[in-house]
Amino acid sequence: MVMKRVVIVGMGFGGLSAAKELAGRGLEVVMVDRHNYHLFQPLLYQVATAGLEQESIAYPVRALARRWQGAAFRMGEVIGVDLAGRHLILADGEFSYDYLILAAGSRTNFFGMEGIERHAFDLKRLSHAEEMRNHILTLFEKAGREPDPARRGALVTFVVVGGGPTGVEFAGALRELVVHVLSRDYPEVRTAETRIILLEAASSLLTAMPDELRAYALRKLRAMGVEVKLETRVIDARDGHVFLHGGEVIESHTLFWSAGVAAAELADRLGVPQAGGGRVTVRAALSLDGHPEAFVIGDMAHLVQDGAVLPMMAPVATQQGRHAARAILALERGEQPPPFRYHDKGAMATIGRSAAVAVSHGFRFRGYLAWLVWLLLHLYYLIGFRNRLLVLMNWAYYYFSHERQVRLITGETDRRI
Amino acid sequence: MVMKRVVIVGMGFGGLSAAKELAGRGLEVVMVDRHNYHLFQPLLYQVATAGLEQESIAYPVRALARRWQGAAFRMGEVIGVDLAGRHLILADGEFSYDYLILAAGSRTNFFGMEGIERHAFDLKRLSHAEEMRNHILTLFEKAGREPDPARRGALVTFVVVGGGPTGVEFAGALRELVVHVLSRDYPEVRTAETRIILLEAASSLLTAMPDELRAYALRKLRAMGVEVKLETRVIDARDGHVFLHGGEVIESHTLFWSAGVAAAELADRLGVPQAGGGRVTVRAALSLDGHPEAFVIGDMAHLVQDGAVLPMMAPVATQQGRHAARAILALERGEQPPPFRYHDKGAMATIGRSAAVAVSHGFRFRGYLAWLVWLLLHLYYLIGFRNRLLVLMNWAYYYFSHERQVRLITGETDRRI
Repeated sequence: MVMKRVVIVGMGFGGLSAAKELAGRGLEVVMVDRHNYHLFQPLLYQVATAGLEQESIAYPVRALARRWQGAAFRMGEVIGVDLAGRHLILADGEFSYDYLILAAGSRTNFFGMEGIERHAFDLKRLSHAEEMRNHILTLFEKAGREPDPARRGALVTFVVVGGGPTGVEFAGALRELVVHVLSRDYPEVRTAETRIILLEAASSLLTAMPDELRAYALRKLRAMGVEVKLETRVIDARDGHVFLHGGEVIESHTLFWSAGVAAAELADRLGVPQAGGGRVTVRAALSLDGHPEAFVIGDMAHLVQDGAVLPMMAPVATQQGRHAARAILALERGEQPPPFRYHDKGAMATIGRSAAVAVSHGFRFRGYLAWLVWLLLHLYYLIGFRNRLLVLMNWAYYYFSHERQVRLITGETDRRI
Repeated sequence: MVMKRVVIVGMGFGGLSAAKELAGRGLEVVMVDRHNYHLFQPLLYQVATAGLEQESIAYPVRALARRWQGAAFRMGEVIGVDLAGRHLILADGEFSYDYLILAAGSRTNFFGMEGIERHAFDLKRLSHAEEMRNHILTLFEKAGREPDPARRGALVTFVVVGGGPTGVEFAGALRELVVHVLSRDYPEVRTAETRIILLEAASSLLTAMPDELRAYALRKLRAMGVEVKLETRVIDARDGHVFLHGGEVIESHTLFWSAGVAAAELADRLGVPQAGGGRVTVRAALSLDGHPEAFVIGDMAHLVQDGAVLPMMAPVATQQGRHAARAILALERGEQPPPFRYHDKGAMATIGRSAAVAVSHGFRFRGYLAWLVWLLLHLYYLIGFRNRLLVLMNWAYYYFSHERQVRLITGETDRRI
């Protein structure tokens, strides 16, 4: 008897949790990703700010595949799906499936602003974080030998757009890097000359959080020296200038964009109905209308629960991955898969050393306790014993020595404004 | 009173040891390098074979500069020296010096074979090691989906040229990666299909070693499954073929070149006499003829001792760096610097897990003991507590689990034949 084949596209949190659930259940599980590793995206900003080496937040998929019975890995770029013929089309090949789980995640949404898209940094891939780190350090090297104060100031002015968790975490970590590490590395540059400007279009940061935690985050960031501007939008960036709606211009060579996400491009190629951000509308069991064998999960999927669209977050993807896997096992038993229901365990964001905000089951945490919980949870969800040890070591090292080791310029980038 | 300025070009073993010796002696010490880190080159081959993350063998120079009194760092590409005017010329600036130490190291020597230079991998920079690792893993991904046995075999055939320590260490580490790690990661590729071919033009490997250790290394490598061909030269590489002198052709997409080194290009731009490999002829105190204030050390310098040219090795560079620094301090005291004398403490090469060869003060070691000594010495000379811990952790992890974590494909390369 030939085993039925489940193909999972995307080895993020959603795809991985689906694969884990399906392994060893008598099905052939083919995991597909354009990279050969699972990336722990929540810590990318720490790679970008010289706190972690890139290798510690990536885990080779084949190391999982060899442990999971019936699982195999295929590296490749998926360019389309023949839903009717049950065929997955890759840039360099194609193969058939009996069940499909699409978990290709999201991409950054620049809302059509080409100037910004060309120059802005974002944090979606491992290479982005390394590029960002190289860029920051290169600017400090340049500032160190720039005699003109105005030009020097522009070199060490960093504009962060988007006051969600990524923008807040990145701005805080960057400020700490500048104040505690680079200020000692570059005696030629005064800390007072450096600027980290966090821009948010809404009237508060971390809009998904309760009021008091938003206020805490704002207060804390400002106390650290991050300039937070609310109700402020960027409209363009070129030739060393960031242009704000309203006419203000900031002299800077760095724009970090975390103000929007959209479903991965693959969503546009399926020929199925899409909702806001290009996300694919799925049925209650996470499958496509008319295709009970094809599931879309995580950031790619649009699903409304209790009147609100489920957010693009790792816990949603993880739970949906598990659900899609169980739905397939149910179909194999001849049963009808149940509807998906997201169990909200909370949300958190870290602002700096010993400072974070967290909300869970109605409880609100902030400061040291929230930071400790953030730390432990991130360690827990990181895959691989060695990676956990590496990250823990780096964190402990930084906590006690205020030193970040990975301040290496390993390449060049052309994203500079 | 204005402090006199010592400029040191190159932050390898030589430059670093000179800077360390000169720090806190009442001189301004300017350290110059094109990269912002010191690179521990002897372990590059372990980065290339997925055993270590690149960050663990690099150390930011500014982390040293901030500890060393009077020391500063300037990142930049040195394009020339005005010896008469005592000026160093960088791609983006220039400045004067009172004393100069040139320690720019070496580059790979392809002996004018352009086809090979265009396609071959070498290990001189951090990026080379990452490129090599990405390339090896990408070929295995391709082999895994290649149905044609001949084409699959060519994809996993690796040609290593040069039987010196680098070639031997790389070939051994690559073979271990293939046999212990990739064989389990890629069930689609049989280990018997993979080939690692080590080519050496001379009649033995490790020509600087005593006969019995050469024989041991050869025996050991062959027992591990490395195909060693002695008295064999490569003449060209193109279109998936490596051409050997004598007509033999090997189907392969990977040529690793460690068959020759020459002094860094900077040596050609000084307008001073050069010897074999472009190395700069120096006087007994390591200074240039007619320029007692300008020193050339390490791989860049040509010096004969007891009838033989000093080899391009880290210990020579380290000792010469210290000597040049002391010579400058002597000149400052109005004394004549003494001639340099190299104290040979031995040489070593590791072949595989628990297998190495070493010679020191007339004693010869091989096998487990030599390997342990190799390991401890490399840890000892690695800079930075965190780096030592990281490397030790990776080695222990590999030793006990036979698992190499850093098998990540983080980018693409165009060096493929």
